[in-house]
Amino acid sequence: MSIEPQKPNTVLIGKKPTINYVMAALKLLNDEGAEEVVIKARGRNICKAVDTVEMLKNLFIKNLVVKDVKIYSEDLDEEGKRKVSALEITVAKERK
Amino acid sequence: MSIEPQKPNTVLIGKKPTINYVMAALKLLNDEGAEEVVIKARGRNICKAVDTVEMLKNLFIKNLVVKDVKIYSEDLDEEGKRKVSALEITVAKERK
Repeated sequence: MSIEPQKPNTVLIGKKPTINYVMAALKLLNDEGAEEVVIKARGRNICKAVDTVEMLKNLFIKNLVVKDVKIYSEDLDEEGKRKVSALEITVAKERK
Repeated sequence: MSIEPQKPNTVLIGKKPTINYVMAALKLLNDEGAEEVVIKARGRNICKAVDTVEMLKNLFIKNLVVKDVKIYSEDLDEEGKRKVSALEITVAKERK
């Protein structure tokens, strides 16, 4: 688990405090000029992904909009017997 | 917390096992003929809402589609100082 993007403009939610992921997303949107950022989480970290989006919107980027939310399952083993729920939230700054 | 709908066709996720909420949604969609069902959760129960949708899709309703996902904050007190993240997932059976 890491807060480093796994692909450009993605924040993968792990075990660290929510504010770490808020800061990672903020950096991508503000400093690195990302048009969109994908906040991604699996299993129990899903609620932290939603917290991250809400904290980002309420504390830092007032014009943040949720552009897309994907819900799906990922396989935990190669046979696909064990699955975990996953959530991807795509956010962007609203253009005026 | 209750699995009884708070308004028609809503399943509010609480502390019970995920399968209880899957069954409540299934009953609304299959037995009561609901066109759409809203799965709603707050705070730590958010991951259970996503699990509910995935379990419903993978085990019971293969043509289930996620029609809408809302992310927002709810006030925990009247002054609005304490907030909790909330998630609403609207699902329906895909029409052929």
